[in-house]
Amino acid sequence: MTAIHIQEIASIVQTGRVLTDESDRFSYSFDGSFGTYLPDIVIQTKSVEELAELVKYANREKIPVYPRGQATSLSGGPLPVKGGMVIDLSVMDDLLEIDEEDLVAVVSPGVLTAHIHKAAEAKGLMYPPDPSSSHVSTIGGNLAENSGGPRGLKYGVTKDYVIGLEMITPQGEIIRTGGRTVKNVTGYDLTKLIVGSEGTLGIITKAILRLIPKTPASETVMAVFDSLVDAGKAISQILSSGILPSKMELMDQASMVAVENYQPSGLPLDADAMILIELDGHPMAVRDEAEQVSKVCKAAGAREVRVPQTKEEQEDVWKARKLVSPAIARIKPTKISEDATVPRSKIPEMCRRLQQIKEKYRLHLVVFGHAGDGNLHPNIIADKSDKEEMLRVEQAVAEIFEAAVELGGTLSGEHGIGTMKAPFMEMELGAAGLDMMKRIKEAWDPNNIMNPGKIFPEPGQKLVLSE
Amino acid sequence: MTAIHIQEIASIVQTGRVLTDESDRFSYSFDGSFGTYLPDIVIQTKSVEELAELVKYANREKIPVYPRGQATSLSGGPLPVKGGMVIDLSVMDDLLEIDEEDLVAVVSPGVLTAHIHKAAEAKGLMYPPDPSSSHVSTIGGNLAENSGGPRGLKYGVTKDYVIGLEMITPQGEIIRTGGRTVKNVTGYDLTKLIVGSEGTLGIITKAILRLIPKTPASETVMAVFDSLVDAGKAISQILSSGILPSKMELMDQASMVAVENYQPSGLPLDADAMILIELDGHPMAVRDEAEQVSKVCKAAGAREVRVPQTKEEQEDVWKARKLVSPAIARIKPTKISEDATVPRSKIPEMCRRLQQIKEKYRLHLVVFGHAGDGNLHPNIIADKSDKEEMLRVEQAVAEIFEAAVELGGTLSGEHGIGTMKAPFMEMELGAAGLDMMKRIKEAWDPNNIMNPGKIFPEPGQKLVLSE
Repeated sequence: MTAIHIQEIASIVQTGRVLTDESDRFSYSFDGSFGTYLPDIVIQTKSVEELAELVKYANREKIPVYPRGQATSLSGGPLPVKGGMVIDLSVMDDLLEIDEEDLVAVVSPGVLTAHIHKAAEAKGLMYPPDPSSSHVSTIGGNLAENSGGPRGLKYGVTKDYVIGLEMITPQGEIIRTGGRTVKNVTGYDLTKLIVGSEGTLGIITKAILRLIPKTPASETVMAVFDSLVDAGKAISQILSSGILPSKMELMDQASMVAVENYQPSGLPLDADAMILIELDGHPMAVRDEAEQVSKVCKAAGAREVRVPQTKEEQEDVWKARKLVSPAIARIKPTKISEDATVPRSKIPEMCRRLQQIKEKYRLHLVVFGHAGDGNLHPNIIADKSDKEEMLRVEQAVAEIFEAAVELGGTLSGEHGIGTMKAPFMEMELGAAGLDMMKRIKEAWDPNNIMNPGKIFPEPGQKLVLSE
Repeated sequence: MTAIHIQEIASIVQTGRVLTDESDRFSYSFDGSFGTYLPDIVIQTKSVEELAELVKYANREKIPVYPRGQATSLSGGPLPVKGGMVIDLSVMDDLLEIDEEDLVAVVSPGVLTAHIHKAAEAKGLMYPPDPSSSHVSTIGGNLAENSGGPRGLKYGVTKDYVIGLEMITPQGEIIRTGGRTVKNVTGYDLTKLIVGSEGTLGIITKAILRLIPKTPASETVMAVFDSLVDAGKAISQILSSGILPSKMELMDQASMVAVENYQPSGLPLDADAMILIELDGHPMAVRDEAEQVSKVCKAAGAREVRVPQTKEEQEDVWKARKLVSPAIARIKPTKISEDATVPRSKIPEMCRRLQQIKEKYRLHLVVFGHAGDGNLHPNIIADKSDKEEMLRVEQAVAEIFEAAVELGGTLSGEHGIGTMKAPFMEMELGAAGLDMMKRIKEAWDPNNIMNPGKIFPEPGQKLVLSE
């Protein structure tokens, strides 16, 4: 990018800020994943029209454009890997409107997801997607990556709640997709194509989200197992007993040990696995369902089943699950969070494979996650300054992906492809499937300005963590 | 199409049938909408490989390809408007596998949707999408059109339950999208792009459908109103009271009169509107919710509220709703079924507009439909041999679309665009939005062989019903 570029960009951005100092730009060089890449310029503006002009300019001058929220991404979505222009959408946080009659929220991309939860709940409504990062991540980032979360089991993911978008195309046109109706089959579903496209198809500047009535009550069941396979069986049997829990989370022994070392919570360290089940709905229904779930867990071999009786006890149980991520981050400085997802029936087999990979590469691997929908989170804890260890991590990550795909699963359940998983795309999709995706990208963004270097592997690209 | 074409096509189809007799082809010239178009050739084969070869051949020779299920489409989806080749996928009905552990159904496109309902229920599971045609329509057709139904209010539409597809691309490649996991963010969501694309992007040859546990109980509430506006208010208030019914259906006075004339059912003919509400879930929860809903309806001005006490009484109430379509079809020979959908808050206003359109054009217009999600079904009953009347129908249909879009709604909630709504696409989407859809079509199907003449308007195309 030349000095003239910077000058012309500054002349487009009348109402916002243009950052070019190295120290400012450095703050935008990393995300929640791996690697740092310095952008040439950073833009903050609340004006959609200015953004559209910027994209038109970038398209003409072939400057890479990297939209970004709070950059909590675990897959490298916002990393400016080719330099160019970062658009900081976290400043676009003015609009958060709850319409109780239409049951929708209309939001600008910089609004924190937790603020949407709160605003909806204040009106007796609920925005179900609940990525663990919701208190720090923006809805724009959630939309770009199609974020999931524990409640995905019953309620689905971000995409299932987006019914309309305003977006800037890679040519700088402002388009609107979908609308305020839940049913809409007018033409191709651009809304659901754009959500989860990781910023490669345009910049989302507004979203219309579907809300549902808030569930009036919830109950929690905690079940401890001496065998991970039995825990897997209990999960299947609960789901086929006519009950659909709102959450069903798994913690393996290594994650319980990590939590106990971080903050003692009375977890059963000699057990192989623990599952936490949340039931939500009508107060009478959830009490009865909690009893049924307890029976199923006991029949499946649980050595202990507990139903917390107070709100405080419930919160304590869930707190242990939430502590897994910070707890394991303390073990070693580098945490590689994967989200390989397998069909539910393959959870025990996937756990076995992960165990083998852990032993084969002598790594600190912890398994926890959203077991009810097969969305496991194998996390490898390492030290990026130890090149020999990182080489083993590279190999282990590749084998995790291979195992997931071999078992009929997917590279990513909710974190996205970004940079790290791009080299493995063809393994899952096949050459023809990947080609159909590329055709959409090329048709919409022929100059490849929107988030270049993401999703699609470059020729010969390999996963490299050891540099 | 030449004799050589027909000969070469016949040589590709080794295991199936090739129909060229005019009487056979005539059976494939119409659907549940308007108009007849004779195809040149009709293919029936269960072999995906043969189909892929056929599409490769058609792409090379630029022959239009029209995939088709049972052709119950109300928007012209399967009509072979440019002649060419019809692919009768109703014969591909062999695969209907319910996997209780993964909570999925794997189906071939020719399976009737009602058979999927039955197979899932036999294993304690549920496939929620329930288009009214489910006993006669194929899942392939439901996938192509992204069919809805009354349960869309709580459970969403077809697209919300499709997690994987096998598809033949317009170049004759067989690709697989998604898989057996509910969460999958590996690349662009081709699954949700293809579902609802009305056969314009390829031929679906297999689908993986998400199932949920079957709800154990249901209750029905019937509420009669002297004012349509009060009925609309009741609908809003139920939804904001923390209850999400599985169905919430509206019948206006004209539809009640039609039903009574067709099959006397004791409907309150002097009332302005009736709403039928179904609650499903835990037995204790639905009983309590039925009481709450009854109270809300009374407070909103219902003159009568009834909760049927037996299974038989429940069925009788819902039967009246199901009779609307056949009842109005008997009034005059030509039924134009629309599915303009508006934001929930605009239902009373849309009803007012429809009343004005009815009076302005002196037409027999009946309003009923899925009021809970704003998906109304204004049906015009006419006689296509009466050209003067059909001219008025054309104008009325155009005004219905305009009203829906003006109120922030959409041309189509669940029937699709097909041929009839194509001229109105730009009104809803804008030129830039429509252009982004066209780019996908052109990138995937540069020779425009897949279901040509659908969705995208041809230059100057207008709605013509009066020819």
